Amino acid sequence: MVSQKYKDMLGAKSVIRQMSEWATKRAEEIGKDNVFDFSLGNPSVPVPQEFTDKVIELMRDRDVMELHGYSQSQGIPSVRAKFADYLNKTFGMNYTAEHIFMTTGAAGAVAHAVRVITEPGDEVITFAPFFPEYNHYINQSGAILKVVPADTQSFQINFEEFEKIINPKTMAILINTPNNPSGIVYSTATIEKLAAILNEKQKEYGHDIFIISDEPYRDIVFEGVDAPYISKFYDNTLSCYSFAKSLSIPGERLGYVAANPKCTDSELISVMCAQISRGIGHNCPASLMQIAVAEVLGLTADLSVYEKNMELLYNELTSLGFECVKPGGTFYIFPKALEEDSVAFCQKAMKYDLVLVPGDSFGCPGYFRMAYCVETQKVERSLAALRRFVENEYRK
Amino acid sequence: MVSQKYKDMLGAKSVIRQMSEWATKRAEEIGKDNVFDFSLGNPSVPVPQEFTDKVIELMRDRDVMELHGYSQSQGIPSVRAKFADYLNKTFGMNYTAEHIFMTTGAAGAVAHAVRVITEPGDEVITFAPFFPEYNHYINQSGAILKVVPADTQSFQINFEEFEKIINPKTMAILINTPNNPSGIVYSTATIEKLAAILNEKQKEYGHDIFIISDEPYRDIVFEGVDAPYISKFYDNTLSCYSFAKSLSIPGERLGYVAANPKCTDSELISVMCAQISRGIGHNCPASLMQIAVAEVLGLTADLSVYEKNMELLYNELTSLGFECVKPGGTFYIFPKALEEDSVAFCQKAMKYDLVLVPGDSFGCPGYFRMAYCVETQKVERSLAALRRFVENEYRK
Repeated sequence: MVSQKYKDMLGAKSVIRQMSEWATKRAEEIGKDNVFDFSLGNPSVPVPQEFTDKVIELMRDRDVMELHGYSQSQGIPSVRAKFADYLNKTFGMNYTAEHIFMTTGAAGAVAHAVRVITEPGDEVITFAPFFPEYNHYINQSGAILKVVPADTQSFQINFEEFEKIINPKTMAILINTPNNPSGIVYSTATIEKLAAILNEKQKEYGHDIFIISDEPYRDIVFEGVDAPYISKFYDNTLSCYSFAKSLSIPGERLGYVAANPKCTDSELISVMCAQISRGIGHNCPASLMQIAVAEVLGLTADLSVYEKNMELLYNELTSLGFECVKPGGTFYIFPKALEEDSVAFCQKAMKYDLVLVPGDSFGCPGYFRMAYCVETQKVERSLAALRRFVENEYRK
Repeated sequence: MVSQKYKDMLGAKSVIRQMSEWATKRAEEIGKDNVFDFSLGNPSVPVPQEFTDKVIELMRDRDVMELHGYSQSQGIPSVRAKFADYLNKTFGMNYTAEHIFMTTGAAGAVAHAVRVITEPGDEVITFAPFFPEYNHYINQSGAILKVVPADTQSFQINFEEFEKIINPKTMAILINTPNNPSGIVYSTATIEKLAAILNEKQKEYGHDIFIISDEPYRDIVFEGVDAPYISKFYDNTLSCYSFAKSLSIPGERLGYVAANPKCTDSELISVMCAQISRGIGHNCPASLMQIAVAEVLGLTADLSVYEKNMELLYNELTSLGFECVKPGGTFYIFPKALEEDSVAFCQKAMKYDLVLVPGDSFGCPGYFRMAYCVETQKVERSLAALRRFVENEYRK
């Protein structure tokens, strides 16, 4: 019989998806240019021409049996070796191919990382505000997600609350920096403090506690911002990456788990992920994409647009009186709503064709997310709508 | 802590993989041409040039945001509509896009199909000989795999044993025709009889019993062979397909689940698969591959090679006295070994650089599998080795 568990999940549609669907419908009525859709984290800048050229070159010149042949479940060995080399050069690490597990994007990476280091009933801690899909990656694995409330002053880690929640059942800490939805980048001081606490707790509890570091926005960091590579600071780290945002190829679903060579069982993590993958239907990304991306490592789309958009919005929002921590990266900003009920706030914004996402589903009610991966001209045009919205609804 | 469950799985390496690794090592010693490696089911004919040209054309002309943009978890809607149309035209069905769920190959398709129609503890029945990865797809979902012993006279279904095993806990029947490893295609009579029994049992037990039809070899059927489309014969059918074998693009991992429009909750199967996918890390295949394959539906690699290879091997094997049911499709043949212990038989064959896979891991000891997706010239050269092997080891 059709599974009741998955049937029951159908009712609970993602709020982000709902807002985005409303935006699409509204665009049919008044034209796409007139809807200020800040709902979806979908890259707005094109993939670089070099990538397109590389794929065409491969299709033209490379042996088709190599290009389209089965890759190991862990990923193509030569591709994994190139990724390891790139990470070593960029971050001063010591990865080899055996530490890399290729995945269908960061979602696949985090879902496998959770399974590889937890048993059902184990606890995984994350920090609000957080990406709502974490609920799914973790709950479906049988582990339990515990959420530390946000430090809304800085959106760094709320250590006081963290130390209340961590306990001997905690097996992993899931962090996301640069952060969706806050846009904040954890500072070196934050990471050092987190590492110190975890090292102490590992001793106290007598077992490993892993950091699962979800890093799809690692390459979208704004000028002058300190963006530490997490795995440098804590040995038991699994870094989860995706090329979706940095290279603007979200549909190609290419990412990886990189296990710190000094982590417990570091040489087993990738092969164990392959066993997990084997049972849930092979999370192995397309061979052509693996080979193509390995040939252009370090290349990114023109990410400067996002910083430009952020400055425009941040300046307007603060001048309108919004409380807002300035983003250090990503293409998100997470201001405080002008009333306690951020769902009501976002609903009122829809009257001005502003599509904002309430912070509730990110574990941070009272705030709202704007995804500014849209054309800069549209961001500019949205400012007047923002002003009208605030003046009409909150300054009457 | 690193999961003990997945760590324990590392010991149990696939026998097929072990044989293949031995073949690779042996090739380093005596040259690839001298090792008759029949271990892996890896297509040996190249992808057609039309596919390569289509990918280059798309990369050159199609908007990159469309080509590489996020697809829905279920797959790109226009691609799913094209797949539905193709199936309707080819098999006289009535699919729409909503019945199609795109997956990373047949592995992803079967793993999702199992999860969508079973709860942990439910039973899934398959028929020996069967693809050993079924153990992983099913056990990791929490369901239980029950195996009906083979009818070694025909490798059709052993209905007598089947009726002893089916019971009220049976929620799905997992079939694979054309079959890996036997190469046999289930006849219309077999499918009609299976459908009749299941319709009766559904009434008797008062719940649905689904057929999960694993069909990666659907397009590799030899001349004159009756190869019924399973879903035509039984409403509660989920068809699982992959382009790996028919188009020779195994590394691109592209497949789908097609839910029969008349099955229970047919309009929910694909969206429920998307919920499952969401929790295990997105089984969504690469957007470029989805779009490219949808443009060449019906195109296959030159599959005639496999029939030629089969005839060569079948004639030689039978003339050497092997008991062997003639394959109707795939690129496998599954003769009876010349001694009871097929593992010992396959080990002796290695002395002649013949790499065969014992039937034990397919649930059919005493038999062995040859994957003849190799160049025809090599098959021809292997015949002398086969003769020497049989004469030296079994005719002394």
